[in-house]
Amino acid sequence: MSNNQVVQNVERVEQDIVDGLAKLGVATVHEAQGRRGLLADYMRPIQQDVAVAGSAITISGAAGDNWMMHVAIEQCHPGDIMVFAPTSPSNFGFFGDLLATSAQVRGVRGLIIEGGVRDTRILREMNFPVWSKHVFAQGTIKETLGSVNVPLVCADELIHPGDVIVADDDGVCVVRREEAADVLAKGNAREALEEEKRIRLANGELGLDIYNMRPRLAEKGLKYV
Amino acid sequence: MSNNQVVQNVERVEQDIVDGLAKLGVATVHEAQGRRGLLADYMRPIQQDVAVAGSAITISGAAGDNWMMHVAIEQCHPGDIMVFAPTSPSNFGFFGDLLATSAQVRGVRGLIIEGGVRDTRILREMNFPVWSKHVFAQGTIKETLGSVNVPLVCADELIHPGDVIVADDDGVCVVRREEAADVLAKGNAREALEEEKRIRLANGELGLDIYNMRPRLAEKGLKYV
Amino acid sequence: MSNNQVVQNVERVEQDIVDGLAKLGVATVHEAQGRRGLLADYMRPIQQDVAVAGSAITISGAAGDNWMMHVAIEQCHPGDIMVFAPTSPSNFGFFGDLLATSAQVRGVRGLIIEGGVRDTRILREMNFPVWSKHVFAQGTIKETLGSVNVPLVCADELIHPGDVIVADDDGVCVVRREEAADVLAKGNAREALEEEKRIRLANGELGLDIYNMRPRLAEKGLKYV
Amino acid sequence: MSNNQVVQNVERVEQDIVDGLAKLGVATVHEAQGRRGLLADYMRPIQQDVAVAGSAITISGAAGDNWMMHVAIEQCHPGDIMVFAPTSPSNFGFFGDLLATSAQVRGVRGLIIEGGVRDTRILREMNFPVWSKHVFAQGTIKETLGSVNVPLVCADELIHPGDVIVADDDGVCVVRREEAADVLAKGNAREALEEEKRIRLANGELGLDIYNMRPRLAEKGLKYV
Amino acid sequence: MSNNQVVQNVERVEQDIVDGLAKLGVATVHEAQGRRGLLADYMRPIQQDVAVAGSAITISGAAGDNWMMHVAIEQCHPGDIMVFAPTSPSNFGFFGDLLATSAQVRGVRGLIIEGGVRDTRILREMNFPVWSKHVFAQGTIKETLGSVNVPLVCADELIHPGDVIVADDDGVCVVRREEAADVLAKGNAREALEEEKRIRLANGELGLDIYNMRPRLAEKGLKYV
Amino acid sequence: MSNNQVVQNVERVEQDIVDGLAKLGVATVHEAQGRRGLLADYMRPIQQDVAVAGSAITISGAAGDNWMMHVAIEQCHPGDIMVFAPTSPSNFGFFGDLLATSAQVRGVRGLIIEGGVRDTRILREMNFPVWSKHVFAQGTIKETLGSVNVPLVCADELIHPGDVIVADDDGVCVVRREEAADVLAKGNAREALEEEKRIRLANGELGLDIYNMRPRLAEKGLKYV
Repeated sequence: MSNNQVVQNVERVEQDIVDGLAKLGVATVHEAQGRRGLLADYMRPIQQDVAVAGSAITISGAAGDNWMMHVAIEQCHPGDIMVFAPTSPSNFGFFGDLLATSAQVRGVRGLIIEGGVRDTRILREMNFPVWSKHVFAQGTIKETLGSVNVPLVCADELIHPGDVIVADDDGVCVVRREEAADVLAKGNAREALEEEKRIRLANGELGLDIYNMRPRLAEKGLKYV
Repeated sequence: MSNNQVVQNVERVEQDIVDGLAKLGVATVHEAQGRRGLLADYMRPIQQDVAVAGSAITISGAAGDNWMMHVAIEQCHPGDIMVFAPTSPSNFGFFGDLLATSAQVRGVRGLIIEGGVRDTRILREMNFPVWSKHVFAQGTIKETLGSVNVPLVCADELIHPGDVIVADDDGVCVVRREEAADVLAKGNAREALEEEKRIRLANGELGLDIYNMRPRLAEKGLKYV
Repeated sequence: MSNNQVVQNVERVEQDIVDGLAKLGVATVHEAQGRRGLLADYMRPIQQDVAVAGSAITISGAAGDNWMMHVAIEQCHPGDIMVFAPTSPSNFGFFGDLLATSAQVRGVRGLIIEGGVRDTRILREMNFPVWSKHVFAQGTIKETLGSVNVPLVCADELIHPGDVIVADDDGVCVVRREEAADVLAKGNAREALEEEKRIRLANGELGLDIYNMRPRLAEKGLKYV
Repeated sequence: MSNNQVVQNVERVEQDIVDGLAKLGVATVHEAQGRRGLLADYMRPIQQDVAVAGSAITISGAAGDNWMMHVAIEQCHPGDIMVFAPTSPSNFGFFGDLLATSAQVRGVRGLIIEGGVRDTRILREMNFPVWSKHVFAQGTIKETLGSVNVPLVCADELIHPGDVIVADDDGVCVVRREEAADVLAKGNAREALEEEKRIRLANGELGLDIYNMRPRLAEKGLKYV
Repeated sequence: MSNNQVVQNVERVEQDIVDGLAKLGVATVHEAQGRRGLLADYMRPIQQDVAVAGSAITISGAAGDNWMMHVAIEQCHPGDIMVFAPTSPSNFGFFGDLLATSAQVRGVRGLIIEGGVRDTRILREMNFPVWSKHVFAQGTIKETLGSVNVPLVCADELIHPGDVIVADDDGVCVVRREEAADVLAKGNAREALEEEKRIRLANGELGLDIYNMRPRLAEKGLKYV
Repeated sequence: MSNNQVVQNVERVEQDIVDGLAKLGVATVHEAQGRRGLLADYMRPIQQDVAVAGSAITISGAAGDNWMMHVAIEQCHPGDIMVFAPTSPSNFGFFGDLLATSAQVRGVRGLIIEGGVRDTRILREMNFPVWSKHVFAQGTIKETLGSVNVPLVCADELIHPGDVIVADDDGVCVVRREEAADVLAKGNAREALEEEKRIRLANGELGLDIYNMRPRLAEKGLKYV
């Protein structure tokens, strides 16, 4: 994790793959890639019933310092998602409506921040989605350099610039850039299977029968009394 | 707490008593039964402004293992509420839209889970209410037996199969099956009293006067300055 | 912090200043007064997209005892906000719909409570906003005296009776009574500046240029690669 | 869970069985009884390197009220352990050196408390061991009745009077009274097996070989690179 | 709470009063002053079995910035205790062995810090006691002014410069400077009473009898079964 | 992060460099490498006043499954430190005295685990140091493959096999393998400087003068009153 540098050329995944992952949602994407990639469960949305995906622009900054946010926005393309992790824990409000305005005009789809966010009502009005660890109005400074588009750890997961971020009401999941197409294919296959099961379950069939669980339950010794 | 068994005959409370308790809500039911029965305050709803009550189908399973959920659904009757507690703490997503589909078709009214839940947006769309400790997409396995309809501890409270679960935006409360009719009667009486007070308070009378608090405050030594 | 007394004459800030602060919101007010006054980030609203301000009626009571709430309501004027802090931590539900009815009829605009609240669905229906540390139905007693309108510590901040409380989705901020007019002026000035910047940012200008950050970034050694 | 009563005749396990469980320790006892019975991991000792076991005297009291502690001590026999759980969460210091003096003279071996304890330095000097959720000096009152020797939930586990409590640096485990002899036998057998393995491991043999893990690892697909 | 100033003349309590409070300890002092003054229970000692008291030198600084520590040490007299609270939450290591060396040579008796501390092993070797919210090695900066010897809120309590801080294994308690002599007298009286009771309890008398609790328990309805 | 593989050839840092880093301790190493590398502050030692350093053997396993621990021990050399992170949060006791016996005989110097540990008293007796997130006796299974010696995220930090782990009472710090010699040199230089300052501070000089802080404080506007 190099220091104080801005990496300008980020390889991104094709937009339709990203959009396909958004449609699958966090739980399915997580399953499709072998149950990896979930950020810690303290990353919660400030809005409800919104699902997005985008290419990660990663931002590493000092605790209580949001200078690198401004630097990062210049590096954003339409379809990107900003991912911020402070180098030490901080609940400060690193991001508010002005930064959101600037990000949104460049086509940024949302923010993932292991820290605090503020102006949350306005952000919801703007339809700029955020997943954060904290909501807190505390103001930040602009004193210390950090880095943009270096690999970083956010909420327990390693994230590289250009990785796909999928976020919805269940939380946040990261998909490696080079695996995104494969994960989408597997996710779509899984979704098709689930749809079929959903119909059978909705018709009153039991999972016990659909998945043929009864023999194995009996073999393991489950007793009905 | 016996292991690895499914108890099939659960005595339940009459449905109109259950429904009456739902209408009273958690705070009133808790008061009516002598301030007992509240589950820990980390049990939070994934939806807003929904109140339900139902007969408890209790499910004990291993951490990160949701196999017994499938077993439990077969035991559910219309009007039941599933109550799941893992034998060790776990934030995994034990329950999602497929299980909810299956539960809902059998008339299950909701889920209380001292663990994680996923597909929360879809669950809200389905009007399948959930109170959980965590929201997390992490997938579970189906390896270890557990039990259905044995007494268990969920979020600090002992719950027996057939006990009435009342849940709303304030949290979750359990009512012993054999006390449910009595609690409903007391709750309705309390509600009537409160309604009368609500009207007097809305008319500008003070609690200090309605409850005749002034003499006791003075006697204890409260000074107005 | 004197004990067991009710201070009856509270100097308050003029209502239009209070209302002006409400319009600015927590983040701007916090900035305008030199980044002071934020209550701890565990103070969260039970409703969404509501912003209020009012004069603090402070209430100090024992853990699990809400007697002083009744005493305090008599001291409330239209435009006030009740601020409750127990003398020891407690998650009990100190406040519910009956107290809210009584407070609302006297013109109270909301409640800030470093404790628990209950009947949250009804409170939302009544449009009585609350910011609390906990949501919990546990009933309280009325046994121990406390004080009304003495300085107290609530969620890490010292609050005097008559101070202005500003609360919205970002949390809660306190403004000293004697500084309120000045903070409003500074906040309005700041808001005007921000509006100008918001327009420029919305037009695609970068913060890097608007704030002239590039030279200082270069001087500190930021490398673009 | 009956209210406001003191059950005076508690059946206890023979002392040598209790002492045998103390020697096995929490981890082994937990394993020997099928991985059940562990209290939540927030129950931590105030002393280091102390292991005890005893028969549970259970105490249920109101939050911030330690009246029932005094009632309970009269019910204690030599070899007992007091187990206190408040009916609502409370970090108050329910127990200090005076109560410990009284308990110790009656032969009580320790305290398990889902709440706070104080005078911790003196308790260590007295060799009166405590496992608690909190350390806090806040004083309690004696206003509300509770119960002694009724089943209760403490730190996520159901505990009956007379159950055996085993506690050491790893935490606290409960053993059902009627299973204690069996658990001791299984624990001793386990301990013997472990001792044999400890010697082999200390001689440099690998668990991979002792437990014959290599074929199953290969079969599951573990790759060495 | 004025900003960016160092108040140089702090009135202190006579040293023998301070020392008397240290001997009483946190629990007794807290009781003697009417159960007020306890800091939050997350303030924990880094050492065991140490009790101190001293006059508060209060220090308010920015999150992650320990500049004011250096300023404060110049203001310290023998017998003082440093009390640091950041203006926003921060777990950084604001204090280590160098600052402790400087403080100790000036006669400072310890540190109370609502933040992080580091070099904890060396601090224990130096016999420089610390009560902190966090232990964390993260380095701080020296960029932002704060204040020394202004009233501040630390761990939920308002502390004035010159107030007496009492700290031991149970936590931390603040005593108002002007009340210290009175609290000492009351504490000593309480201690004498407790000593008498300790002897009676050690002789096997029950609290039920010493405090004459039996009639009131019966009157409230406690049943022995 | 590849799955289900054991990387056998780990490049390690020379032992005298590792030992030099151990002597510097966590705070100094963290400073010497530019304030990077600290694991989250919830990683706490089970013993007191122990400092170690070693080469990381990284272990990634499923929640509640310690199978890979056995696989990892075979890969350990004298001077190594085991670093375990579960792929999902888990407080289970992944490691106890048997594994410690096996690790110690191979020369392993300690364990860093973002999970639970048990048999803590015996581990202290064995002088096998552990830094963990939890202490909990809950037993684990051996069902799911994981990986050994792949890069992983542990307590917010990315750790590669062969990186140097430094751990003491302040927590845990990771040093990149390729930077270790440089960090040691910088740390030793820093230590020399600090020693000089420690002597001046011990002689009563103030940091204000040693670091020449007074002019900058005055310039920023600090007022003495």
